[in-house]
Amino acid sequence: MNSGLLIVVSGPSGTGKGTVCAELLKKEDDLFLSVSTTSRGIRAGEIDGVTYNYTTADNFKKMIEDNLMLEWAVYSGNYYGTPKATVEKMMGEGKNVLLEIDVQGALQIKKSYPEAVLIFILPPSMQELRRRLVERGRETEEQIDERIFAAAFEFENAKRYDYVVVNDDLDKCVKAVESIICAEKYKTKRNIELIKKLVD
Amino acid sequence: MNSGLLIVVSGPSGTGKGTVCAELLKKEDDLFLSVSTTSRGIRAGEIDGVTYNYTTADNFKKMIEDNLMLEWAVYSGNYYGTPKATVEKMMGEGKNVLLEIDVQGALQIKKSYPEAVLIFILPPSMQELRRRLVERGRETEEQIDERIFAAAFEFENAKRYDYVVVNDDLDKCVKAVESIICAEKYKTKRNIELIKKLVD
Repeated sequence: MNSGLLIVVSGPSGTGKGTVCAELLKKEDDLFLSVSTTSRGIRAGEIDGVTYNYTTADNFKKMIEDNLMLEWAVYSGNYYGTPKATVEKMMGEGKNVLLEIDVQGALQIKKSYPEAVLIFILPPSMQELRRRLVERGRETEEQIDERIFAAAFEFENAKRYDYVVVNDDLDKCVKAVESIICAEKYKTKRNIELIKKLVD
Repeated sequence: MNSGLLIVVSGPSGTGKGTVCAELLKKEDDLFLSVSTTSRGIRAGEIDGVTYNYTTADNFKKMIEDNLMLEWAVYSGNYYGTPKATVEKMMGEGKNVLLEIDVQGALQIKKSYPEAVLIFILPPSMQELRRRLVERGRETEEQIDERIFAAAFEFENAKRYDYVVVNDDLDKCVKAVESIICAEKYKTKRNIELIKKLVD
């Protein structure tokens, strides 16, 4: 059996990558979401094991030292990251694993695991990104300005991803990511054993 | 508008790549077959402009000298190849161009045009390949042995293709190639302009 794929999806706030990932998980039977681990406290409305896996900062630091994290970062003094164990177990079972993480984490993964498939979700335009953030109404105008500024910086890093998909139409965007997942399985580098077997 | 893709499909005799390509052309509206040019005479049942474009050996040699061929080869003293002009015109119009050619031609194209997408169609097994060739009944047993020998050699070159797809089920194989064509359009290297435009 072939190993599953590690699919990493990133994109700035407001691109709708969360909705894209949720749709993918509904449609793709052998795709599984990897839940991130964090050292920050659980908040109202969050579910342990669903929103995040919660642990202590000491535990998290120990996992980093023991090289047990696929990627990790610190935001506002809290650790966030992806433990290797769950991801590798699922992939070993032939399941495709979906990670919805930021650029920093994605590029960490690509370095240690070049076979990962990095997909960057782009908004149709900066104007549309701003419109979506305003409509969502979660941030102040100043915070939205900051997010737009951060997005422009993230787009620069999009060049280091394998694929970029514009989310101007949810269905089209989900279909595109599904095609990418399907196509990646046929990459020659993932099928060298198969060719060898045929020749022998 | 983005340039179309150059899709190159190869595979040994008996893998069913012809059927796969015919199905693709039926299903994909913006996919066009590039008809090869040959210096050999037209045979009964062949149609000029459909089976091949026919020309003289002198004309063909002149086209090679003038660097007008994307790839070419000689078989049994006759020239076969793909003129650049038609392919580049179609791609410039945003159409995807399909080439069903042999390993030698495919690797020539990859060298001069690294953006080409090379797909190798594999049989499920050597036994099945032999069975299909016998069933087809076009060759003597000796010729079939030769084809099987040639196939094993071609599989070695499959490693230099971008994708390998096993044709054990026609629908599944066609769907795989369709996914590859769709996914390739989202490759970051084909969308650098789009990212630039967003940032500006």
